[in-house]
Amino acid sequence: MRITEQAKQQCRARILEKASELFCARGFDQTTTRDIALAAGVAAGTMFNYFPSKETMAMTMVSDALAAGEEEFRGRTGGELAEDLFGFIASGLRKLRPLRPFLGPVLERSLSPFPRKNVCPVGEAARQRHLDFMQQILASHGFSSAPDYVATTIYWSLYLGVLAFWTSDFSPNQEASQALVDYSVRTFVHIISGSAGGDGGEHVL
Amino acid sequence: MRITEQAKQQCRARILEKASELFCARGFDQTTTRDIALAAGVAAGTMFNYFPSKETMAMTMVSDALAAGEEEFRGRTGGELAEDLFGFIASGLRKLRPLRPFLGPVLERSLSPFPRKNVCPVGEAARQRHLDFMQQILASHGFSSAPDYVATTIYWSLYLGVLAFWTSDFSPNQEASQALVDYSVRTFVHIISGSAGGDGGEHVL
Repeated sequence: MRITEQAKQQCRARILEKASELFCARGFDQTTTRDIALAAGVAAGTMFNYFPSKETMAMTMVSDALAAGEEEFRGRTGGELAEDLFGFIASGLRKLRPLRPFLGPVLERSLSPFPRKNVCPVGEAARQRHLDFMQQILASHGFSSAPDYVATTIYWSLYLGVLAFWTSDFSPNQEASQALVDYSVRTFVHIISGSAGGDGGEHVL
Repeated sequence: MRITEQAKQQCRARILEKASELFCARGFDQTTTRDIALAAGVAAGTMFNYFPSKETMAMTMVSDALAAGEEEFRGRTGGELAEDLFGFIASGLRKLRPLRPFLGPVLERSLSPFPRKNVCPVGEAARQRHLDFMQQILASHGFSSAPDYVATTIYWSLYLGVLAFWTSDFSPNQEASQALVDYSVRTFVHIISGSAGGDGGEHVL
């Protein structure tokens, strides 16, 4: 008997749902793939056909949440650049919020500022899509005066800093993170709008 | 027979020297603690009295290099804030340069933007000292208008981004990193000088 595409999608969704529940209840590191297979009622071998590791499950949830955030944001562009960027980042964080209890160790391993040999492909795809989307926002507001690699590296550094801070921000409604995003975005806009950098040659490493 | 303090220091230095040679020649991940003990001519048990892991050895080298960079920089303060910060970061990078071939995986594991349960104590101490020094530089130029946690988080995000980029920057004389440091520093100065952020309450995560 062939498994229908629909049955596959349902199985995949059930695995993610149970994995998310377990990660939230027990913590990411304390949950085994065996626990997840048991809770989802699938054989371990079957589960590995869908997800090679629990890291991949978690990063799939992150990726789906960020994609949903982008979708939500798409209808709301049209403000100033800083507002658009704030809105973009905030939409993503809102969708990530249910995952917040277990995000720290997951993001740390999958979204590093450092280049690495063994990249989690799902995490790498989510990173790339996020940066592409950010660059579309920039493009819709005019060109950037900073070189692309500078803009991308600084954006990603600041964004990881925001994510890292936000995953363990216990202030009411994550107000502390909100201020951090606000400062980070304005700073970033300042760079790419050409008011910073580029006095050329004066400084040598 | 008691081992003198001098003999201990010599043994410690020899272990670090051999570890550094091996890390550069073979890569960090490909070097085992057994290789290092053999090259340094000490028993594995003795070596573990000095360093509990090769991560600790590598982070000790990083920490020593950054401390040497701070020392070098100390005689050169007195410029504008952006120049001082550039000088501070550049001094550290110059001292880190000999370690550059194997720094990526080491820094990634030890200096993460994410809070973690099992911190490398040597890395954590180096991070804290670097941030304290940065705050001394800020203080010598007047107060910062951004909340401390914002300034510190953004500085550390940008600094990790610089380190990560620099460890794999193959442009001549790391010119690309130089531009990145330049932009990052100016950006940071812009934030803390009060020109960014703080329009309060308009944006909600």
